[in-house]
Amino acid sequence: MTATAPGAGGAGTAGTAGTAGTAGGSPVTVEAHQSAILRVITALPPASLELADAEGCVLAEDVTAAVPLPSFDNSSMDGYAVQAADTDHSSERSPATLPVKGEIAAGDTGAFRLDPGTAVRIMTGAQLPSGADAVVPVEWTNGGGELVEIYRPVEPGNAVRYVGGDAREGETLLTAGLRIRPMHIAVAASAGRRQVRVRPRPRVVVLSTGNELTEPGTPLVPGRIWDSNSYMLAAAAREAGAVACRRSVVPDDIAGVLPALQEQLRHADLLVTTGGVSMGGDHDVVKAALRELGTVTFTKVAMQPGMPQGFGTIGEERVPIFTLPGNPVSAYVSFHLFVRPAIAALQGAADLRLPAVRATLTAAVRSPEGRRSYLRGVLGDGEVAPLSGQGSHQIAALGKANALIIVPERETRLPAGETVDVLVLP
Amino acid sequence: MTATAPGAGGAGTAGTAGTAGTAGGSPVTVEAHQSAILRVITALPPASLELADAEGCVLAEDVTAAVPLPSFDNSSMDGYAVQAADTDHSSERSPATLPVKGEIAAGDTGAFRLDPGTAVRIMTGAQLPSGADAVVPVEWTNGGGELVEIYRPVEPGNAVRYVGGDAREGETLLTAGLRIRPMHIAVAASAGRRQVRVRPRPRVVVLSTGNELTEPGTPLVPGRIWDSNSYMLAAAAREAGAVACRRSVVPDDIAGVLPALQEQLRHADLLVTTGGVSMGGDHDVVKAALRELGTVTFTKVAMQPGMPQGFGTIGEERVPIFTLPGNPVSAYVSFHLFVRPAIAALQGAADLRLPAVRATLTAAVRSPEGRRSYLRGVLGDGEVAPLSGQGSHQIAALGKANALIIVPERETRLPAGETVDVLVLP
Repeated sequence: MTATAPGAGGAGTAGTAGTAGTAGGSPVTVEAHQSAILRVITALPPASLELADAEGCVLAEDVTAAVPLPSFDNSSMDGYAVQAADTDHSSERSPATLPVKGEIAAGDTGAFRLDPGTAVRIMTGAQLPSGADAVVPVEWTNGGGELVEIYRPVEPGNAVRYVGGDAREGETLLTAGLRIRPMHIAVAASAGRRQVRVRPRPRVVVLSTGNELTEPGTPLVPGRIWDSNSYMLAAAAREAGAVACRRSVVPDDIAGVLPALQEQLRHADLLVTTGGVSMGGDHDVVKAALRELGTVTFTKVAMQPGMPQGFGTIGEERVPIFTLPGNPVSAYVSFHLFVRPAIAALQGAADLRLPAVRATLTAAVRSPEGRRSYLRGVLGDGEVAPLSGQGSHQIAALGKANALIIVPERETRLPAGETVDVLVLP
Repeated sequence: MTATAPGAGGAGTAGTAGTAGTAGGSPVTVEAHQSAILRVITALPPASLELADAEGCVLAEDVTAAVPLPSFDNSSMDGYAVQAADTDHSSERSPATLPVKGEIAAGDTGAFRLDPGTAVRIMTGAQLPSGADAVVPVEWTNGGGELVEIYRPVEPGNAVRYVGGDAREGETLLTAGLRIRPMHIAVAASAGRRQVRVRPRPRVVVLSTGNELTEPGTPLVPGRIWDSNSYMLAAAAREAGAVACRRSVVPDDIAGVLPALQEQLRHADLLVTTGGVSMGGDHDVVKAALRELGTVTFTKVAMQPGMPQGFGTIGEERVPIFTLPGNPVSAYVSFHLFVRPAIAALQGAADLRLPAVRATLTAAVRSPEGRRSYLRGVLGDGEVAPLSGQGSHQIAALGKANALIIVPERETRLPAGETVDVLVLP
């Protein structure tokens, strides 16, 4: 149950970026790299979407009440509209008896009027007739059709929803920057909006590169592995609010990578590649291709897994691109620390970091000095259990995780019982 | 900041179901109604979906490792494959010097072999040649091409990922019943799966009924309101994992409601209606239509908002149908207590109840005796603030809420400072 077992591959990506020559200097912190990314990303221009398509998008305007809500006095119950004074002193033994002068159903339009000393049958949501100041619930009456007997006095305002009682005309109901959830859809519709102006879901394209990659569902030969990164990252981008798709595996040569990237530029608000950025010289085709297409900086980040990170923009439109490490656990952790907040920023959202909690470690963990570890764990009931299999290729353990345990840079070992920060995985 | 203000309409739906004559007896508990629903719902038959479409679905099979993962010994770093013994006693001053007999890149296939006293250049993820038992990271060498100088001894197994080190052949990687998240997509792809057998997303159709309803985006006349329920509930059903759509507003007459329901039967795994089920007699067209189509039971549930609930099945296929109250806040709360778990059950998922936490009330709240209140509130930092505007028509307040405060049936008032159960809203 301890982390960074020798030979488990966790350290595999450690020195590689450094020796690649493009990631000079000492490693930067996770926060510094996050900030560098967010300085480059600008929000997508807003678009008007139908309500049915707006859920999960970020609102780009304030939604105000064009009319007061409700827009007319109405009944909150089925019963009888009356003047409250006409029910004074009524009781079971000595009911007030009023002639019923009609009926108003929900949706009835027109100018209804109640005369003193009379009642009008009224349904939930129906307009209160002018002259009426209260509704007697049908349960407090004999339910009469021509004459109604009222068994209890009502106060003025009883069972009445007054105009503007939910919102005043012009009141701000939803504020720009909000991520639209189902109740916000209801608010916008209630205010008569069929469309809202939102930052649309960013279009994310994911490419895996590597000669070792084989499409899942096809036979494997020794030396090859099935591609999982592109499927995983497209799913993670969708979960983060993007429209995402994967491009089929790109072979590790510049003649394949360069046109693949160019072709996707027009479809993408954000590109994510995995693999091809280690120190393998001729094999680092993503690095070589990016040199021709834009400005991408390769950075060592003081973290494990996921130390070698690349970020920049390519093409005339300066589309942001992330080059994530090829090990699947490294790619997964990198996505959640760096790509997820970038997707939020494209939407103009304040933040899309993973929720963090504090929990008690159930077993000791180890971590390399000077790097912040994000260990896979199972969180529950205030405790977090580190999983065995912390290598950055050990995807089976990631499949059992629901949390990332943070071990700070200064720690190389934390004992069981220690309180740690934990990121909750989506 | 207190709940259930007089005349706010919160009590509006209280007695109505009782007097409709179809909801006999005293109210049942929320749990009893939930159980009655889940007894009727059976999971949808499984289907095989492409990985890209499987996220968010519930797995209907165990996914096992068809081959060990990794399926071959490989290097976790860029470096040199060696016999560890050949690096004994090596140091900066007195390096071991080995001839480099070739290079293995990730994805290279073939039967590679290392002779004692030699080294083979090897890339991250590449097959370990037979005869080698360790990898020397390139950082511990001079990076030589024909001869390599090794500055540190390595242990056997250094930087080697052994066959099966992630998962053994036949090992269960993902268990049926799991809701598929991005890391599970990665696990399935890593195991070579292009498709997985899942319970598909249920198809939910939402219908609003009511002559008072006007489509958002069109002008409003006095006596009418814009329909919000169908938009809200379709969004909520999507959030809960369904494929959902709304049918445009159905007028309040049986000639409109009956064919609208029949037409949707073939498109839906679950139907949700709102409105048309109060005590309004001739106006309760949903009730009347359902009598002709199937078996729907109308129940008083001891809760506020949302007391009048209807649930049953209609049509030859016995499609489950919920008839929710028409007040938008009642419909919203009812959806999350009753429809959301039903959507989960259609997917064969164990549960889809809202997450619950404990929090301290910042202000006093009131609640009707004998009914459990679900008050709209704002949760943060262990405290929950009840919103003003707790009427079941007060959608603007719902738009500000992120939580439902539970006031138990036996309580009519809870003071500020009390600890309460709170449901976290999606």
